[in-house]
Amino acid sequence: MKPDRLIDIASLEAALQKFADDRDWSQYHSPKNLAMALTGEVGELVEIFQWLTEAQSKDVARDPNTAQAVRDELADVFIYLVRLSSVLGVDLNAAVVAKLAANARRYPAGESSSSRGSPR
Amino acid sequence: MKPDRLIDIASLEAALQKFADDRDWSQYHSPKNLAMALTGEVGELVEIFQWLTEAQSKDVARDPNTAQAVRDELADVFIYLVRLSSVLGVDLNAAVVAKLAANARRYPAGESSSSRGSPR
Amino acid sequence: MKPDRLIDIASLEAALQKFADDRDWSQYHSPKNLAMALTGEVGELVEIFQWLTEAQSKDVARDPNTAQAVRDELADVFIYLVRLSSVLGVDLNAAVVAKLAANARRYPAGESSSSRGSPR
Amino acid sequence: MKPDRLIDIASLEAALQKFADDRDWSQYHSPKNLAMALTGEVGELVEIFQWLTEAQSKDVARDPNTAQAVRDELADVFIYLVRLSSVLGVDLNAAVVAKLAANARRYPAGESSSSRGSPR
Repeated sequence: MKPDRLIDIASLEAALQKFADDRDWSQYHSPKNLAMALTGEVGELVEIFQWLTEAQSKDVARDPNTAQAVRDELADVFIYLVRLSSVLGVDLNAAVVAKLAANARRYPAGESSSSRGSPR
Repeated sequence: MKPDRLIDIASLEAALQKFADDRDWSQYHSPKNLAMALTGEVGELVEIFQWLTEAQSKDVARDPNTAQAVRDELADVFIYLVRLSSVLGVDLNAAVVAKLAANARRYPAGESSSSRGSPR
Repeated sequence: MKPDRLIDIASLEAALQKFADDRDWSQYHSPKNLAMALTGEVGELVEIFQWLTEAQSKDVARDPNTAQAVRDELADVFIYLVRLSSVLGVDLNAAVVAKLAANARRYPAGESSSSRGSPR
Repeated sequence: MKPDRLIDIASLEAALQKFADDRDWSQYHSPKNLAMALTGEVGELVEIFQWLTEAQSKDVARDPNTAQAVRDELADVFIYLVRLSSVLGVDLNAAVVAKLAANARRYPAGESSSSRGSPR
């Protein structure tokens, strides 16, 4: 977890900025609105899984009935999350690196699961 | 939108796999469970914005009272989303590239906003 | 499903209106904000279930570790939902009665589950 | 806030139980699954509001383009919430009464908003 570069999303951030600018959509892209849009997309993603058992959920991306939908919804969530971080001016890589370091301190490897709170 | 490489999350995927393995958490990481964990984190992110005006929401990452929380919640959402894609075996870069291409066809640049459905 | 009175929430609507008025909170209670608050509370509710198996989830209200939390989160979701309907001027009983009638037409009793889409 | 009967949902609980039994759906209605279904419906509700200003959001139930959708989504959220409480065996009225009493203690009327945390 040491590396300080775990993700690279700069090209996507630029593509999303251009996409919004080309359509005059930046006026709608307040962080508040984008957080709501993120919620909506997560809701669509969750709907794919809601009636499946945990075992069934593992096959969702291979099942011809759900493979395309799950890819689309994962992409939509990703796109809004990156767009939200971007308009907020948050360096998502730095935030992720810091959070993983905090998680590593909070949940040391090798301790028994039962002595901890919720697993991550 | 032409490049076929918009994001690079391979290092994070590997780090999350190792993190889970080191704690024996992979047993909990069914797609169904991870989709729920993603929901929970999005809920925490939304709570930061819920009583703010759109204008106020733009300053969230600069306000000392919320800057750390918003970075943490964005990171948590990102981490669970990448972990979910990973256990599903979905190539998130390919999914994002395909979705942006579909969005570009669906919402051509230059058309007036009022003639379309919801902006993105 | 025939009765036209399935729920009665008038007393709660009045109590929530008074509660908001007494604290000068109605200014924050736009439908947009309340929809976000609802999201946040649903996220907290989901977090109780995210790492549990379906079987374990059935005992959540009897487990001393989770019984109070699940009651509190269910109540929070209910409160925000009723408040949201109230500020929108929606008659929630009429909406529920109409939706159940529509569901009964869409999913006739006695048809095999496999011939339908997602169960409800 | 004194009355110990703020809501009456018994008829709806019975109707939902019968609806599920008639379709053999109770097997799908674990609390975990219902919590996910609730998430999905809240996501659909939020999508109605995501690009609207707070002022615009107040007219959603009167706008012919959104009035039916908002009633349907409010009803769906309500239905799943009541069904979830029901299968958990939670007395939702008691939970709501207790939560409002706790809120009244936590946020006394008459104190200035700025001296408190998030408004409710």
